[in-house]
Amino acid sequence: MGTVVALTGQVGGAKLVDGLYRLRGKDLAAIVNTGDDYEHLTLRFSPDIDTLLYVLSGMASPAAPWEPAGESHALYATLKQFGGPQELTLGDKSLAAPLLRTAWLAADRRLTAITLDFCRQLGITARVLPMTDDAVRTYVLTEDGEVSFQEYFTTLACEPVVKGFHYAGAEDAMLTPEVSDALDSADLEAVILCPANPYHTIRPILEVPGMRELLRKRKAPVIAVTPIVGGRALRGSAAKIMSELRHEASARRVALEYLRLIDGFVIDAEDAAGAEDVRASGIEVLVANTVMRTLEDRTALARAVLAFAQTIRERRLQEA
Amino acid sequence: MGTVVALTGQVGGAKLVDGLYRLRGKDLAAIVNTGDDYEHLTLRFSPDIDTLLYVLSGMASPAAPWEPAGESHALYATLKQFGGPQELTLGDKSLAAPLLRTAWLAADRRLTAITLDFCRQLGITARVLPMTDDAVRTYVLTEDGEVSFQEYFTTLACEPVVKGFHYAGAEDAMLTPEVSDALDSADLEAVILCPANPYHTIRPILEVPGMRELLRKRKAPVIAVTPIVGGRALRGSAAKIMSELRHEASARRVALEYLRLIDGFVIDAEDAAGAEDVRASGIEVLVANTVMRTLEDRTALARAVLAFAQTIRERRLQEA
Repeated sequence: MGTVVALTGQVGGAKLVDGLYRLRGKDLAAIVNTGDDYEHLTLRFSPDIDTLLYVLSGMASPAAPWEPAGESHALYATLKQFGGPQELTLGDKSLAAPLLRTAWLAADRRLTAITLDFCRQLGITARVLPMTDDAVRTYVLTEDGEVSFQEYFTTLACEPVVKGFHYAGAEDAMLTPEVSDALDSADLEAVILCPANPYHTIRPILEVPGMRELLRKRKAPVIAVTPIVGGRALRGSAAKIMSELRHEASARRVALEYLRLIDGFVIDAEDAAGAEDVRASGIEVLVANTVMRTLEDRTALARAVLAFAQTIRERRLQEA
Repeated sequence: MGTVVALTGQVGGAKLVDGLYRLRGKDLAAIVNTGDDYEHLTLRFSPDIDTLLYVLSGMASPAAPWEPAGESHALYATLKQFGGPQELTLGDKSLAAPLLRTAWLAADRRLTAITLDFCRQLGITARVLPMTDDAVRTYVLTEDGEVSFQEYFTTLACEPVVKGFHYAGAEDAMLTPEVSDALDSADLEAVILCPANPYHTIRPILEVPGMRELLRKRKAPVIAVTPIVGGRALRGSAAKIMSELRHEASARRVALEYLRLIDGFVIDAEDAAGAEDVRASGIEVLVANTVMRTLEDRTALARAVLAFAQTIRERRLQEA
């Protein structure tokens, strides 16, 4: 068996990566969105990275995988007593990674090295790789102007109508050696675009110069898994944003977002009727259960996606 | 009644300031040592300020007044999981003030303004004033070289033999308008050097250029309260340090440290025999119970010290 690379972010992405990790362990690399990173109280928060670390290490709260289980809020309560910000709930445990990340970045360590160190400490054998060590910040263009993704997501509660996105800093961001090595690996078996918002989770990763080119080399099949089931985002605002961008909020529309980049697309059984439309655009389609409610769902979907990639790879070999 | 100024730091100092605060409320200003401040994980810790804020606001743990009551360590435990420093216990609640202080300093606010804001938020009507807004750092000269006070106190557990102290940055530190106003106040009634280590708590305050001059103007009696009772420091390493500096570890020796700066000295009943020696050096002496075990002890000692100052003031008026 070869190596597998996942492009990921958000909770849905973390769940599929967890399934892949349970199957492949150290032969998995996850390239994680950092466009949603932000600074708060001078600390560097990397929500997509931390969610994935919590999930892969088994620390995550089952009900709220973006934070460690048994979270408490003693620091936050005291912060309020001292006149600190009232609006954002900072869990005690959730502050640990940002605090250490901030300190190590201040000591001139690379975000990638810090994240890999976190993996080692937590006993995660897969490689969790930030999409870049440079600052890329996703901004949401709304009818009232441009706001950071973090402000859109928390303060504005995803309410303003979205007109577009802006990935500030992306044009100057550099691929890291670790990301290049993972995507350029001789034994690369599959690249999986995890079920996550295509605009502010997967797209920022693709915006890092060189990332699309590495994918287009087609060293291995590139498979995307839909974040939209039955016209609804499983979690988050993907469907809302798609309709505001005047796109159909559907799985097949997500496939079009990845046109010329992916070989295969995984849609939910609920959307099986749309499979032919996607196939018509030259993308192979797997219909599967994409809703991951249990740990078994995660490994089942991961297994199905990897088998789908192998089918595509074998067909390619036959055609060659 | 006029205003009272206390020079303070450590737990003993905070206890006496608390007694003074219970008697005088908003007519009290506490000038606090910041020579023990340090940076850890990019956060700015001001232990003497925070201890005083916890004590005056009633938040302090009775058993460990340098931290809020009901302290927890969820963040610290998670920090260790992520490979963070193992040696220093960071309480969840105790991190709130450093975190907010760091953020507000980064936003170019003055340490004094931040501390006064904390007072307002916590409902403390007295003014808690850092000795300066500038960085002064106390270093301990040991036989093995110079170490920061923080390292001496925590990592080295006060073990190396002390040869002296160095107050880095003191020569360039500036008095704040708030400290000048407090010591220059027309209705100043007493200045009290609280029971605290003379070398690394009271002395750094005195090293801020202009501080000694303001005290020597003698706008009001200056009274010091001994931190040494029966040859022992009530808490901390004062007695150990004094003997290593080849000084007698005694209350009267502390009085000599403040020679020409103080008008009166408060020693414990246990040390009453040493009173004459101190008086011989031209300092008036009050013998009192200086050991503050209960809240009542704090106000009783504060009341005795203020009465002592009034006696000195009245005698001066008679002599004038």
